[in-house]
Amino acid sequence: MTKIVTAGVILIGDELLSGRTQDTNLSSIAKFLTPLGVTIGEARIIADNANIISQTVKDFSDRFDYVFTTGGIGPTHDDITADSIASAFGIGISEREDALNVLRKRYSDEELNAARRRMARVPDGAVLIDNPVSQAPGFQTKNVFTMAGVPQIMKGMLADVAHRIEGGAKTFSISVTASGIGEGDAAAPLAAIESQYSGVSLGSYPFFNDDLRGVNFVARGRDMVILDEVKEKLEKLVFELSANE
Amino acid sequence: MTKIVTAGVILIGDELLSGRTQDTNLSSIAKFLTPLGVTIGEARIIADNANIISQTVKDFSDRFDYVFTTGGIGPTHDDITADSIASAFGIGISEREDALNVLRKRYSDEELNAARRRMARVPDGAVLIDNPVSQAPGFQTKNVFTMAGVPQIMKGMLADVAHRIEGGAKTFSISVTASGIGEGDAAAPLAAIESQYSGVSLGSYPFFNDDLRGVNFVARGRDMVILDEVKEKLEKLVFELSANE
Repeated sequence: MTKIVTAGVILIGDELLSGRTQDTNLSSIAKFLTPLGVTIGEARIIADNANIISQTVKDFSDRFDYVFTTGGIGPTHDDITADSIASAFGIGISEREDALNVLRKRYSDEELNAARRRMARVPDGAVLIDNPVSQAPGFQTKNVFTMAGVPQIMKGMLADVAHRIEGGAKTFSISVTASGIGEGDAAAPLAAIESQYSGVSLGSYPFFNDDLRGVNFVARGRDMVILDEVKEKLEKLVFELSANE
Repeated sequence: MTKIVTAGVILIGDELLSGRTQDTNLSSIAKFLTPLGVTIGEARIIADNANIISQTVKDFSDRFDYVFTTGGIGPTHDDITADSIASAFGIGISEREDALNVLRKRYSDEELNAARRRMARVPDGAVLIDNPVSQAPGFQTKNVFTMAGVPQIMKGMLADVAHRIEGGAKTFSISVTASGIGEGDAAAPLAAIESQYSGVSLGSYPFFNDDLRGVNFVARGRDMVILDEVKEKLEKLVFELSANE
Protein backbone atom coordinates (compact mmCIF):
# COMPACT_ATOMS: atom_id res chain seq x y z
CA MET A 1 0.00 0.00 0.00
CA THR A 2 1.35 3.42 -0.95
CA LYS A 3 2.06 5.75 1.93
CA ILE A 4 -0.15 8.62 2.99
CA VAL A 5 1.43 12.01 2.33
CA THR A 6 0.00 15.11 4.00
CA ALA A 7 0.25 18.86 3.67
CA GLY A 8 -0.64 21.86 5.78
CA VAL A 9 -1.51 25.23 4.25
CA ILE A 10 -0.90 28.59 5.95
CA LEU A 11 -2.64 31.59 4.39
CA ILE A 12 -1.02 34.75 5.74
CA GLY A 13 -2.64 38.17 5.68
CA ASP A 14 -4.84 40.58 7.60
CA GLU A 15 -6.81 41.20 4.40
CA LEU A 16 -8.11 37.59 4.45
CA LEU A 17 -9.29 37.89 8.06
CA SER A 18 -10.91 41.28 7.50
CA GLY A 19 -13.00 39.95 4.62
CA ARG A 20 -11.44 42.41 2.19
CA THR A 21 -9.90 39.62 0.13
CA GLN A 22 -11.58 36.31 -0.67
CA ASP A 23 -8.97 33.55 -0.51
CA THR A 24 -8.80 31.25 -3.51
CA ASN A 25 -5.27 29.94 -2.94
CA LEU A 26 -6.33 27.06 -0.70
CA SER A 27 -8.48 25.43 -3.35
CA SER A 28 -5.80 26.04 -6.02
CA ILE A 29 -3.23 24.31 -3.83
CA ALA A 30 -5.67 21.46 -3.08
CA LYS A 31 -6.36 20.93 -6.78
CA PHE A 32 -2.62 20.95 -7.45
CA LEU A 33 -1.86 18.43 -4.68
CA THR A 34 -4.63 15.89 -5.29
CA PRO A 35 -3.13 14.44 -8.53
CA LEU A 36 0.25 14.24 -6.76
CA GLY A 37 -1.24 12.09 -4.00
CA VAL A 38 -0.93 14.66 -1.22
CA THR A 39 -3.84 15.31 1.15
CA ILE A 40 -4.29 18.62 2.97
CA GLY A 41 -4.80 17.95 6.67
CA GLU A 42 -5.44 21.49 7.87
CA ALA A 43 -5.32 25.09 6.71
CA ARG A 44 -4.94 28.20 8.82
CA ILE A 45 -5.60 31.80 8.01
CA ILE A 46 -3.43 33.97 10.20
CA ALA A 47 -2.64 37.66 10.67
CA ASP A 48 0.50 39.53 9.57
CA ASN A 49 2.18 38.89 12.91
CA ALA A 50 5.76 37.61 13.08
CA ASN A 51 5.30 35.46 16.20
CA ILE A 52 2.14 33.81 14.96
CA ILE A 53 3.69 33.11 11.54
CA SER A 54 6.82 31.58 13.13
CA GLN A 55 4.92 29.40 15.55
CA THR A 56 2.46 28.17 12.94
CA VAL A 57 5.21 27.34 10.44
CA LYS A 58 7.19 25.46 13.10
CA ASP A 59 4.14 23.51 14.23
CA PHE A 60 3.01 22.66 10.68
CA SER A 61 6.54 21.72 9.57
CA ASP A 62 6.59 19.09 12.33
CA ARG A 63 3.07 17.80 11.73
CA PHE A 64 2.87 17.58 7.94
CA ASP A 65 5.07 16.20 5.17
CA TYR A 66 4.82 19.47 3.26
CA VAL A 67 3.78 22.98 4.21
CA PHE A 68 2.66 25.74 1.87
CA THR A 69 2.51 29.38 2.89
CA THR A 70 1.01 32.17 0.82
CA GLY A 71 1.39 35.90 1.34
CA GLY A 72 3.78 38.45 2.77
CA ILE A 73 6.86 38.14 0.55
CA GLY A 74 6.65 41.48 -1.29
CA PRO A 75 8.76 44.64 -0.91
CA THR A 76 6.70 46.55 1.68
CA HIS A 77 6.96 46.89 5.45
CA ASP A 78 4.07 44.48 6.02
CA ASP A 79 5.91 41.69 4.19
CA ILE A 80 7.39 39.79 7.11
CA THR A 81 7.02 36.18 6.04
CA ALA A 82 10.67 35.50 5.04
CA ASP A 83 12.02 36.76 8.36
CA SER A 84 9.34 34.87 10.28
CA ILE A 85 10.27 31.61 8.54
CA ALA A 86 13.98 32.07 9.27
CA SER A 87 13.00 32.69 12.87
CA ALA A 88 10.77 29.58 12.93
CA PHE A 89 13.77 27.40 12.07
CA GLY A 90 16.31 29.45 14.05
CA ILE A 91 18.38 30.11 10.94
CA GLY A 92 19.84 33.28 9.44
CA ILE A 93 18.48 35.34 6.57
CA SER A 94 20.33 37.55 4.13
CA GLU A 95 20.26 39.00 0.64
CA ARG A 96 21.24 36.30 -1.81
CA GLU A 97 23.06 36.79 -5.09
CA ASP A 98 20.97 34.23 -7.01
CA ALA A 99 17.77 35.93 -5.87
CA LEU A 100 19.16 39.38 -6.77
CA ASN A 101 20.00 38.07 -10.24
CA VAL A 102 16.41 36.97 -10.69
CA LEU A 103 15.20 40.46 -9.73
CA ARG A 104 17.68 42.04 -12.17
CA LYS A 105 15.82 40.34 -15.01
CA ARG A 106 12.85 42.54 -14.25
CA TYR A 107 14.22 45.68 -12.66
CA SER A 108 16.82 48.17 -13.85
CA ASP A 109 19.56 49.15 -11.40
CA GLU A 110 17.62 52.30 -10.62
CA GLU A 111 14.38 50.41 -10.00
CA LEU A 112 16.14 47.88 -7.79
CA ASN A 113 15.84 50.05 -4.69
CA ALA A 114 16.18 48.99 -1.06
CA ALA A 115 12.54 47.88 -0.88
CA ARG A 116 12.83 45.61 -3.92
CA ARG A 117 16.17 44.23 -2.71
CA ARG A 118 14.32 42.98 0.37
CA MET A 119 12.69 40.45 -1.96
CA ALA A 120 16.15 38.91 -2.45
CA ARG A 121 16.43 38.17 1.28
CA VAL A 122 15.81 34.47 1.84
CA PRO A 123 16.50 32.17 4.79
CA ASP A 124 19.92 30.50 4.76
CA GLY A 125 19.98 27.33 2.68
CA ALA A 126 16.61 27.98 1.03
CA VAL A 127 16.05 26.90 -2.56
CA LEU A 128 14.38 29.52 -4.76
CA ILE A 129 10.99 28.98 -6.40
CA ASP A 130 10.50 30.45 -9.88
CA ASN A 131 7.95 33.22 -10.34
CA PRO A 132 6.99 33.41 -14.01
CA VAL A 133 4.64 36.37 -13.45
CA SER A 134 6.67 39.04 -11.65
CA GLN A 135 10.09 37.35 -11.12
CA ALA A 136 10.45 37.98 -7.35
CA PRO A 137 11.07 34.41 -6.19
CA GLY A 138 9.43 32.23 -3.59
CA PHE A 139 11.62 29.83 -1.65
CA GLN A 140 11.69 26.41 -0.07
CA THR A 141 13.09 25.96 3.46
CA LYS A 142 13.17 22.30 4.52
CA ASN A 143 9.62 21.05 3.85
CA VAL A 144 8.07 24.54 3.72
CA PHE A 145 7.23 26.20 0.38
CA THR A 146 6.83 29.96 0.73
CA MET A 147 4.83 31.54 -2.06
CA ALA A 148 3.24 34.86 -2.98
CA GLY A 149 -0.31 35.72 -1.98
CA VAL A 150 -1.44 37.09 -5.36
CA PRO A 151 -3.33 34.14 -6.91
CA GLN A 152 -1.81 34.44 -10.40
CA ILE A 153 1.71 34.47 -8.98
CA MET A 154 0.99 31.69 -6.49
CA LYS A 155 -0.29 29.44 -9.28
CA GLY A 156 2.77 30.22 -11.37
CA MET A 157 5.04 29.20 -8.49
CA LEU A 158 3.28 25.86 -8.05
CA ALA A 159 4.60 24.83 -11.45
CA ASP A 160 8.13 24.93 -10.04
CA VAL A 161 7.12 23.08 -6.88
CA ALA A 162 5.60 19.97 -8.45
CA HIS A 163 8.89 18.19 -9.16
CA ARG A 164 10.04 18.67 -5.55
CA ILE A 165 7.15 16.71 -4.11
CA GLU A 166 7.26 13.02 -3.44
CA GLY A 167 3.62 12.07 -3.57
CA GLY A 168 1.78 9.18 -2.00
CA ALA A 169 -1.45 7.27 -2.33
CA LYS A 170 -3.70 9.20 -4.69
CA THR A 171 -7.22 10.07 -3.65
CA PHE A 172 -10.01 9.85 -6.20
CA SER A 173 -13.53 11.09 -5.92
CA ILE A 174 -16.84 10.60 -7.66
CA SER A 175 -19.96 12.63 -7.21
CA VAL A 176 -23.66 12.17 -7.86
CA THR A 177 -26.10 15.06 -7.84
CA ALA A 178 -29.65 14.54 -6.66
CA SER A 179 -31.98 17.43 -7.41
CA GLY A 180 -35.18 17.70 -5.42
CA ILE A 181 -34.04 15.17 -2.82
CA GLY A 182 -34.01 15.87 0.91
CA GLU A 183 -30.69 15.11 2.59
CA GLY A 184 -32.51 13.57 5.55
CA ASP A 185 -34.17 10.97 3.34
CA ALA A 186 -30.81 9.82 2.07
CA ALA A 187 -29.03 9.73 5.43
CA ALA A 188 -29.74 6.15 6.50
CA PRO A 189 -29.10 4.45 3.10
CA LEU A 190 -26.00 6.61 2.69
CA ALA A 191 -24.56 5.47 6.02
CA ALA A 192 -25.39 1.89 4.99
CA ILE A 193 -23.43 2.27 1.75
CA GLU A 194 -20.44 3.78 3.53
CA SER A 195 -20.36 0.99 6.11
CA GLN A 196 -19.95 -1.57 3.29
CA TYR A 197 -16.72 -0.02 2.04
CA SER A 198 -13.78 0.56 4.32
CA GLY A 199 -11.47 3.21 2.92
CA VAL A 200 -14.31 5.13 1.30
CA SER A 201 -15.58 8.33 2.87
CA LEU A 202 -18.99 9.51 1.82
CA GLY A 203 -19.99 13.12 2.08
CA SER A 204 -23.37 14.68 1.53
CA TYR A 205 -23.60 18.36 0.58
CA PRO A 206 -27.06 19.92 0.37
CA PHE A 207 -27.68 22.93 -1.84
CA PHE A 208 -30.43 25.52 -1.84
CA ASN A 209 -30.47 27.75 -4.90
CA ASP A 210 -33.68 29.76 -4.96
CA ASP A 211 -36.34 27.13 -5.55
CA LEU A 212 -33.94 24.32 -6.36
CA ARG A 213 -32.88 22.12 -3.49
CA GLY A 214 -30.92 18.94 -3.65
CA VAL A 215 -27.85 17.12 -2.49
CA ASN A 216 -24.44 16.36 -3.93
CA PHE A 217 -23.13 13.01 -2.79
CA VAL A 218 -19.35 12.74 -2.94
CA ALA A 219 -17.33 9.58 -2.33
CA ARG A 220 -13.57 9.75 -1.80
CA GLY A 221 -11.16 6.88 -1.68
CA ARG A 222 -7.94 5.45 -3.06
CA ASP A 223 -9.42 2.68 -5.22
CA MET A 224 -11.20 3.82 -8.39
CA VAL A 225 -12.78 0.38 -9.01
CA ILE A 226 -14.46 0.49 -5.63
CA LEU A 227 -15.51 4.11 -6.16
CA ASP A 228 -17.20 3.09 -9.43
CA GLU A 229 -19.17 0.50 -7.48
CA VAL A 230 -20.13 3.14 -4.90
CA LYS A 231 -21.19 5.47 -7.70
CA GLU A 232 -23.58 2.86 -9.07
CA LYS A 233 -25.10 2.40 -5.61
CA LEU A 234 -25.49 6.15 -5.19
CA GLU A 235 -27.18 6.47 -8.58
CA LYS A 236 -29.54 3.65 -7.64
CA LEU A 237 -30.28 5.40 -4.33
CA VAL A 238 -31.03 8.68 -6.08
CA PHE A 239 -33.34 6.89 -8.51
CA GLU A 240 -35.27 5.27 -5.65
CA LEU A 241 -35.52 8.49 -3.65
CA SER A 242 -36.72 10.40 -6.71
CA ALA A 243 -39.45 7.81 -7.27
CA ASN A 244 -40.67 8.41 -3.70
CA GLU A 245 -40.85 12.20 -4.00
CA MET B 1 -11.02 53.73 24.84
CA THR B 2 -13.41 51.01 23.80
CA LYS B 3 -12.22 47.47 24.38
CA ILE B 4 -10.89 45.16 21.69
CA VAL B 5 -13.23 42.25 20.97
CA THR B 6 -11.94 39.24 19.03
CA ALA B 7 -13.37 36.24 17.25
CA GLY B 8 -12.04 32.94 15.92
CA VAL B 9 -13.62 31.16 12.96
CA ILE B 10 -13.57 27.37 12.48
CA LEU B 11 -14.58 26.14 9.03
CA ILE B 12 -15.32 22.42 9.26
CA GLY B 13 -15.37 20.04 6.30
CA ASP B 14 -13.25 17.70 4.19
CA GLU B 15 -14.74 19.32 1.07
CA LEU B 16 -12.99 22.62 1.88
CA LEU B 17 -9.60 20.92 2.28
CA SER B 18 -10.01 18.83 -0.86
CA GLY B 19 -10.67 21.91 -2.97
CA ARG B 20 -14.11 20.64 -3.99
CA THR B 21 -15.83 23.55 -2.26
CA GLN B 22 -14.59 27.13 -2.25
CA ASP B 23 -15.23 28.63 1.18
CA THR B 24 -17.02 31.97 1.23
CA ASN B 25 -18.24 31.82 4.83
CA LEU B 26 -15.13 33.39 6.35
CA SER B 27 -15.50 36.62 4.41
CA SER B 28 -19.26 36.71 5.10
CA ILE B 29 -18.58 36.37 8.82
CA ALA B 30 -15.83 39.02 8.65
CA LYS B 31 -18.15 41.47 6.89
CA PHE B 32 -20.83 40.76 9.49
CA LEU B 33 -18.46 41.28 12.43
CA THR B 34 -16.66 44.44 11.31
CA PRO B 35 -19.61 46.82 11.88
CA LEU B 36 -20.15 45.19 15.29
CA GLY B 37 -16.60 46.02 16.32
CA VAL B 38 -15.31 42.44 16.41
CA THR B 39 -11.97 41.53 14.80
CA ILE B 40 -11.21 38.02 13.57
CA GLY B 41 -7.88 36.89 15.00
CA GLU B 42 -7.56 33.54 13.25
CA ALA B 43 -9.48 31.11 11.10
CA ARG B 44 -8.92 27.38 10.71
CA ILE B 45 -10.13 24.99 8.10
CA ILE B 46 -10.28 21.51 9.59
CA ALA B 47 -11.37 18.02 8.56
CA ASP B 48 -14.52 16.18 9.62
CA ASN B 49 -12.75 14.60 12.58
CA ALA B 50 -14.35 14.60 16.04
CA ASN B 51 -11.10 14.98 18.02
CA ILE B 52 -9.78 17.80 15.88
CA ILE B 53 -13.11 19.65 16.04
CA SER B 54 -13.30 19.28 19.85
CA GLN B 55 -9.75 20.42 20.45
CA THR B 56 -9.99 23.38 18.09
CA VAL B 57 -13.28 24.55 19.62
CA LYS B 58 -11.89 24.26 23.15
CA ASP B 59 -8.71 26.14 22.21
CA PHE B 60 -10.58 28.90 20.32
CA SER B 61 -13.22 29.28 23.05
CA ASP B 62 -10.42 30.07 25.52
CA ARG B 63 -8.49 32.39 23.19
CA PHE B 64 -11.23 34.50 21.61
CA ASP B 65 -14.26 36.39 22.86
CA TYR B 66 -16.48 34.70 20.28
CA VAL B 67 -16.10 31.60 18.14
CA PHE B 68 -18.00 30.78 14.98
CA THR B 69 -18.11 27.31 13.47
CA THR B 70 -19.58 26.42 10.10
CA GLY B 71 -20.41 22.98 8.77
CA GLY B 72 -21.36 19.52 9.95
CA ILE B 73 -24.79 20.03 11.55
CA GLY B 74 -26.96 18.21 8.99
CA PRO B 75 -28.74 14.85 9.22
CA THR B 76 -26.08 12.54 7.75
CA HIS B 77 -23.41 10.33 9.31
CA ASP B 78 -20.64 12.85 8.50
CA ASP B 79 -22.39 15.55 10.55
CA ILE B 80 -20.47 15.29 13.81
CA THR B 81 -20.11 18.91 14.87
CA ALA B 82 -22.80 18.98 17.60
CA ASP B 83 -21.36 15.93 19.37
CA SER B 84 -17.83 17.27 19.02
CA ILE B 85 -18.81 20.57 20.63
CA ALA B 86 -20.53 18.83 23.56
CA SER B 87 -17.35 16.82 23.97
CA ALA B 88 -15.19 19.97 23.79
CA PHE B 89 -16.99 21.36 26.83
CA GLY B 90 -17.48 18.03 28.59
CA ILE B 91 -21.27 18.43 28.59
CA GLY B 92 -24.10 16.14 27.53
CA ILE B 93 -26.08 16.23 24.31
CA SER B 94 -29.62 15.10 23.67
CA GLU B 95 -32.67 15.63 21.48
CA ARG B 96 -34.39 18.82 22.57
CA GLU B 97 -38.10 19.52 22.40
CA ASP B 98 -37.69 23.15 21.28
CA ALA B 99 -35.41 22.05 18.44
CA LEU B 100 -37.84 19.27 17.44
CA ASN B 101 -40.66 21.81 17.33
CA VAL B 102 -38.64 23.93 14.93
CA LEU B 103 -38.13 20.91 12.66
CA ARG B 104 -41.87 20.12 12.80
CA LYS B 105 -42.53 23.43 11.07
CA ARG B 106 -40.82 22.05 7.99
CA TYR B 107 -41.24 18.31 8.15
CA SER B 108 -44.34 16.10 8.44
CA ASP B 109 -44.29 13.34 11.07
CA GLU B 110 -43.42 10.89 8.32
CA GLU B 111 -40.55 13.01 7.02
CA LEU B 112 -39.19 13.55 10.52
CA ASN B 113 -37.22 10.30 10.47
CA ALA B 114 -34.32 9.30 12.73
CA ALA B 115 -31.78 11.13 10.54
CA ARG B 116 -33.66 14.42 10.64
CA ARG B 117 -34.31 14.05 14.38
CA ARG B 118 -30.52 14.08 14.82
CA MET B 119 -30.69 17.76 13.86
CA ALA B 120 -32.66 18.35 17.09
CA ARG B 121 -29.75 17.05 19.20
CA VAL B 122 -27.96 20.00 20.78
CA PRO B 123 -25.45 20.28 23.63
CA ASP B 124 -27.02 20.74 27.10
CA GLY B 125 -27.81 24.37 27.84
CA ALA B 126 -27.30 25.54 24.26
CA VAL B 127 -29.45 28.38 22.92
CA LEU B 128 -30.89 27.74 19.45
CA ILE B 129 -30.04 29.92 16.43
CA ASP B 130 -32.85 30.54 13.92
CA ASN B 131 -32.47 29.16 10.41
CA PRO B 132 -34.79 31.07 8.07
CA VAL B 133 -33.81 28.97 5.04
CA SER B 134 -34.31 25.33 6.03
CA GLN B 135 -35.42 25.56 9.71
CA ALA B 136 -32.90 23.08 11.20
CA PRO B 137 -31.40 25.28 13.91
CA GLY B 138 -27.85 26.23 14.78
CA PHE B 139 -26.99 26.70 18.42
CA GLN B 140 -24.89 28.73 20.82
CA THR B 141 -22.85 27.00 23.54
CA LYS B 142 -21.10 29.49 25.83
CA ASN B 143 -19.22 31.81 23.44
CA VAL B 144 -19.38 29.41 20.49
CA PHE B 145 -21.90 29.90 17.67
CA THR B 146 -22.42 26.72 15.64
CA MET B 147 -23.83 27.33 12.20
CA ALA B 148 -24.52 25.47 8.96
CA GLY B 149 -21.93 25.23 6.20
CA VAL B 150 -24.25 26.06 3.29
CA PRO B 151 -23.57 29.78 2.67
CA GLN B 152 -27.21 30.85 2.27
CA ILE B 153 -28.16 29.15 5.54
CA MET B 154 -25.07 30.42 7.35
CA LYS B 155 -25.88 34.00 6.36
CA GLY B 156 -29.48 33.54 7.47
CA MET B 157 -28.28 32.36 10.89
CA LEU B 158 -26.02 35.40 11.38
CA ALA B 159 -29.14 37.57 11.52
CA ASP B 160 -30.12 35.82 14.76
CA VAL B 161 -26.58 36.08 16.17
CA ALA B 162 -26.07 39.85 15.90
CA HIS B 163 -28.07 40.77 19.01
CA ARG B 164 -26.08 38.29 21.12
CA ILE B 165 -22.77 39.98 20.47
CA GLU B 166 -21.32 42.68 22.64
CA GLY B 167 -19.04 44.51 20.25
CA GLY B 168 -15.99 46.64 20.89
CA ALA B 169 -13.87 49.24 19.20
CA LYS B 170 -14.90 49.43 15.57
CA THR B 171 -12.32 49.14 12.84
CA PHE B 172 -12.59 51.33 9.77
CA SER B 173 -10.67 51.11 6.54
CA ILE B 174 -9.98 53.27 3.54
CA SER B 175 -8.37 52.21 0.29
CA VAL B 176 -6.60 53.91 -2.59
CA THR B 177 -5.96 52.16 -5.88
CA ALA B 178 -2.85 52.97 -7.89
CA SER B 179 -2.86 51.56 -11.41
CA GLY B 180 0.46 51.24 -13.19
CA ILE B 181 2.47 51.74 -10.01
CA GLY B 182 5.11 49.29 -8.81
CA GLU B 183 4.70 48.20 -5.20
CA GLY B 184 8.46 48.51 -4.66
CA ASP B 185 8.42 52.20 -5.55
CA ALA B 186 5.80 52.87 -2.91
CA ALA B 187 7.39 50.82 -0.13
CA ALA B 188 9.59 53.43 1.52
CA PRO B 189 7.09 56.34 1.48
CA LEU B 190 4.39 53.91 2.62
CA ALA B 191 6.42 52.84 5.65
CA ALA B 192 7.09 56.53 6.36
CA ILE B 193 3.36 57.28 6.37
CA GLU B 194 2.60 54.36 8.67
CA SER B 195 5.29 55.38 11.14
CA GLN B 196 3.58 58.76 11.56
CA TYR B 197 0.34 57.23 12.79
CA SER B 198 0.22 54.83 15.70
CA GLY B 199 -2.92 52.73 15.60
CA VAL B 200 -3.07 52.69 11.81
CA SER B 201 -1.98 49.61 9.89
CA LEU B 202 -1.14 50.09 6.25
CA GLY B 203 -1.34 47.20 3.81
CA SER B 204 -0.24 47.11 0.22
CA TYR B 205 -1.82 44.60 -2.17
CA PRO B 206 -0.41 44.35 -5.68
CA PHE B 207 -2.57 43.13 -8.54
CA PHE B 208 -1.67 41.72 -11.94
CA ASN B 209 -4.62 41.42 -14.32
CA ASP B 210 -3.34 40.64 -17.81
CA ASP B 211 -1.54 43.83 -18.80
CA LEU B 212 -2.79 45.89 -15.89
CA ARG B 213 -0.60 46.01 -12.84
CA GLY B 214 -1.00 48.18 -9.81
CA VAL B 215 -1.40 48.28 -6.06
CA ASN B 216 -4.25 48.71 -3.65
CA PHE B 217 -3.23 50.55 -0.51
CA VAL B 218 -5.46 49.85 2.46
CA ALA B 219 -5.31 51.61 5.82
CA ARG B 220 -7.13 50.19 8.84
CA GLY B 221 -7.65 51.87 12.16
CA ARG B 222 -10.18 52.85 14.78
CA ASP B 223 -10.25 56.61 14.14
CA MET B 224 -11.95 57.73 10.92
CA VAL B 225 -10.58 61.28 11.16
CA ILE B 226 -7.03 59.98 11.17
CA LEU B 227 -7.83 57.55 8.35
CA ASP B 228 -9.08 60.44 6.24
CA GLU B 229 -5.75 62.15 6.79
CA VAL B 230 -3.92 58.97 5.79
CA LYS B 231 -6.09 58.71 2.71
CA GLU B 232 -5.05 62.18 1.58
CA LYS B 233 -1.39 61.26 2.03
CA LEU B 234 -1.85 58.05 0.06
CA GLU B 235 -3.57 59.92 -2.77
CA LYS B 236 -0.72 62.42 -2.83
CA LEU B 237 1.78 59.55 -2.90
CA VAL B 238 -0.02 57.90 -5.82
CA PHE B 239 -0.07 61.21 -7.69
CA GLU B 240 3.68 61.64 -7.23
CA LEU B 241 4.49 58.07 -8.19
CA SER B 242 2.32 58.34 -11.30
CA ALA B 243 4.15 61.50 -12.34
CA ASN B 244 7.44 59.57 -12.16
CA GLU B 245 6.28 56.65 -14.28
